[in-house]
Amino acid sequence: MSETVQLSLHEVHALAVRVLSHNGMSDAHAQAIARVITAGQRDECHSHGVYRLLVTTHTLRKGKVSGTAEPIVSDRSPAIVAVDAQFAFSQLAFEVGSKVLAEKARRTGIAALAINNCYHFSALWPEVEMLAEQGLVALAMTPSHAWVAPAGGSRPALGTNPLAFGWPRPGKSPYVFDFATSAAARGEIELHRRSGKEIPLGWGVDATGSPTTDPSAVVNGGAMLTFGGHKGSALSTMVEMLAGPLIGDLTSIDSLALDAGEGGTPCHGELILAFDPAAFGLGDLQGDRARAERLFETITGQGARLPSQRRFEARARSVAHGVTLPRALYSEVLALLR
Amino acid sequence: MSETVQLSLHEVHALAVRVLSHNGMSDAHAQAIARVITAGQRDECHSHGVYRLLVTTHTLRKGKVSGTAEPIVSDRSPAIVAVDAQFAFSQLAFEVGSKVLAEKARRTGIAALAINNCYHFSALWPEVEMLAEQGLVALAMTPSHAWVAPAGGSRPALGTNPLAFGWPRPGKSPYVFDFATSAAARGEIELHRRSGKEIPLGWGVDATGSPTTDPSAVVNGGAMLTFGGHKGSALSTMVEMLAGPLIGDLTSIDSLALDAGEGGTPCHGELILAFDPAAFGLGDLQGDRARAERLFETITGQGARLPSQRRFEARARSVAHGVTLPRALYSEVLALLR
Repeated sequence: MSETVQLSLHEVHALAVRVLSHNGMSDAHAQAIARVITAGQRDECHSHGVYRLLVTTHTLRKGKVSGTAEPIVSDRSPAIVAVDAQFAFSQLAFEVGSKVLAEKARRTGIAALAINNCYHFSALWPEVEMLAEQGLVALAMTPSHAWVAPAGGSRPALGTNPLAFGWPRPGKSPYVFDFATSAAARGEIELHRRSGKEIPLGWGVDATGSPTTDPSAVVNGGAMLTFGGHKGSALSTMVEMLAGPLIGDLTSIDSLALDAGEGGTPCHGELILAFDPAAFGLGDLQGDRARAERLFETITGQGARLPSQRRFEARARSVAHGVTLPRALYSEVLALLR
Repeated sequence: MSETVQLSLHEVHALAVRVLSHNGMSDAHAQAIARVITAGQRDECHSHGVYRLLVTTHTLRKGKVSGTAEPIVSDRSPAIVAVDAQFAFSQLAFEVGSKVLAEKARRTGIAALAINNCYHFSALWPEVEMLAEQGLVALAMTPSHAWVAPAGGSRPALGTNPLAFGWPRPGKSPYVFDFATSAAARGEIELHRRSGKEIPLGWGVDATGSPTTDPSAVVNGGAMLTFGGHKGSALSTMVEMLAGPLIGDLTSIDSLALDAGEGGTPCHGELILAFDPAAFGLGDLQGDRARAERLFETITGQGARLPSQRRFEARARSVAHGVTLPRALYSEVLALLR
């Protein structure tokens, strides 16, 4: 028997829907989550792909995150829509809210979607890409759990606070980045710990505040660090403010306190901004786009990569040939249907 | 004779207005620029204080930047105002546009001010602070000249692209950061070059793309680097897109090309976003503010500084006692009145 299983993207999506539905998720939530799981697997972001079904099902079975709550949409202003996710994962709230966000952005040129009371699921790039595919420029951010020390400090205050940006490029994959404002992802430190490997200096400090290469010391009583020193720390604080208190939601400190040591996924708000290029500018959209493209060419022309380029290459492969899963993972996922 | 001169903030402002007016600037521009020069001196940002009068007068006398052009305000949408600075410095355009921006932000909850065709003058913190003082959350950014290599590259593509953020804290100085997305400011590298000092590794590369500690090698044929590796590089690219092509204005590549080797100040657009906390959130503004304050306390409570803290301490001193200028600088400035 082969060590791997080959699936089409359609099969990945159907499998995800079956597993999530079987484990008590409403069809609307299952469809929304299956879409991002399929996208993650397609782009070879393995921790956000089919593997995620294991984690998600575990979380659903614990009953902490709602698998059925319906998002409640509030039209706040001509440029703001808020969606209360009612303590479900954020994907369905985003899909429902992003339709209103896109309409508002087309009418007023700039608009905001505030998602409240949602559980963090995976990356933010699916959200900014979905908006970029509609020709909108998008910026998304969210706090997480307070695991990260501020610059000049040594105790947790900030989350890993990702920031994602999408710029539409008609006829091409959009310009997209999605990065944690922590020096490394929490999961990466966890992976090093499990495999007994040292982490690079700069990822975290121990309980005494000293730089350490020991992942256990960071996770147990120490703190992660932000990327880019005091600038990264300031940026992370901005994410806390905009996607936390501004929209009436929790900071990473609050989210970790709410978790009360259970080790659950962060509960937080999310802020997504959308800009319609047609509403800005001086009337020369073609020229504006061309100037953006010239910058991208100056970057790639010197051998540097654009962010997400690897992901888009993987996507092209997956769309053409489907995806390959380890048989062990596939079997584990099928077991979730029992 | 004392080596220094003591001036009140009122005297600094009056001196700046006199010098700028004497050198052909309209009263409206002179007042707007005098305000930021006074603010820079007050906060002990010496390169943005009275010293700036020397540079500004030199630029005015060369005739490249208009000292009299009146900003043209265009109401683009319920949430967007654009101001054409008509190739003057950005300060007056900001002052005129920010009034409309604030009104729009109060009505729609989020609004954008796009300034086009302006010359860069100084820092962005005066703009986000002015909005924060009105209770608005503000984000500002601008491209510059293409001096900075993208992550993975070694040739200039990006500007030093500052990003500034302000969060109002009623009864306290706002939370404010304002940083270049380059590892160091261009001026800092220039200062090292003039004083024959090495720069730290990580600030730039030489013409062959190799890391260097020689400031001349960076400035002549080499390139500066962004802060924070590929994340800082991505963030800098976002600044290019949002405050460049999105608003119909130049990228840093375009701005440097327009300068055509003259060594002039960057000509660009600027994007300022304003958020009204009263329009977001779930109706508990006091609670939201308290959560933000808890984060700030968790930062300062462990001995870490908030960004701008040094500036606010200097401000308190200057407001109480006035500012101290080197007599040589004061004499040089007075000479501009001849």
